[in-house]
Amino acid sequence: MPEERRSRLSPEDRRTQLMIVGVNFLADHPLDELSMDELARRAGVSRALLFHYFDSKQGMHRAVVTTARDSLLQATAPRADLAPRERIDDTLRRFASFVRDHRGTFLSLVRGPASGDPTVRALVDESREFNAEQLREAFSELGIPDSRAVRMALRGWVSFAEEVFVSLAADDLDDDSELVAFLVHTLDGAVAAACESSF
Amino acid sequence: MPEERRSRLSPEDRRTQLMIVGVNFLADHPLDELSMDELARRAGVSRALLFHYFDSKQGMHRAVVTTARDSLLQATAPRADLAPRERIDDTLRRFASFVRDHRGTFLSLVRGPASGDPTVRALVDESREFNAEQLREAFSELGIPDSRAVRMALRGWVSFAEEVFVSLAADDLDDDSELVAFLVHTLDGAVAAACESSF
Repeated sequence: MPEERRSRLSPEDRRTQLMIVGVNFLADHPLDELSMDELARRAGVSRALLFHYFDSKQGMHRAVVTTARDSLLQATAPRADLAPRERIDDTLRRFASFVRDHRGTFLSLVRGPASGDPTVRALVDESREFNAEQLREAFSELGIPDSRAVRMALRGWVSFAEEVFVSLAADDLDDDSELVAFLVHTLDGAVAAACESSF
Repeated sequence: MPEERRSRLSPEDRRTQLMIVGVNFLADHPLDELSMDELARRAGVSRALLFHYFDSKQGMHRAVVTTARDSLLQATAPRADLAPRERIDDTLRRFASFVRDHRGTFLSLVRGPASGDPTVRALVDESREFNAEQLREAFSELGIPDSRAVRMALRGWVSFAEEVFVSLAADDLDDDSELVAFLVHTLDGAVAAACESSF
């Protein structure tokens, strides 16, 4: 009896279940197709229950995108106990694992949330900014001074890496070490080019 | 008398005027805020006239994004008469000029068209694919063999360059030569890293 089964979930577990259904939907569909009706149908709950958790479609969209973003950020948070070189390697390795193991969540974040809602866009941009800033700190520890060119290079490289990870998700490459070496190589190249620039 | 003035435009000129107003709107607003009412108001024409040119909001959105994309592609089309190195330099230089002179059109394309409409997304992706493919041809003439890694590197680098050009549009850098040298340097680095990779 579905009603019976549903009633067993705690509110926290129910919310988690709704978020998982929403994030998975975004891997293959644009955000604006995720209506309250669609999510209710896919999660097997009533519209009324959904409105108990989210007061509007906009609120639900923001919650879904926040969930996808936080999953990625938590899984790939730089380990402060590592030296900068090892920290960059380790982060990229965990990034590749995340893309492999949670392909849907990753694609939902970089391909899904095309949205007219500035809050949703800001959620995704924040994650890019966070990654660029973490790299800037690592390179700063390696003696690379902060500059406009370095910041531009790092922001650009985060977009570069995102595009490469999209290829990884699509092509199913099987050697993370090669991929991480390739990414580190291009990262060092971008930073070196920035250091030689005078803007 | 506005009615008098409007009637003087030929249908082609009227359509061009509507496209310019639409593209400029997208520089600072998401696509889904561009309603038929909003465009009619900004262009100073009636809703009825607008529906004479576009049968729906979706059709109007596609026309506006196509216009922005084609402006950029035409202004930056690689010159087939140049040798590959000069062709890449020349294209990047004209790209930088376009970003400087038509900031709104450029931003409307890379920041504006977040859209649930797959056709609109495809329009923007086509322009990235075109740029990556032009680069692949230039590097092929330079003796770099085609490979999955090279294609990934070039697709990634197009996103890198786009992000750098967004910074250019925001920061108003004043030396294109430095910027082009920086971009070429990172492009060569990405391709070299791809050539050393075994995937």
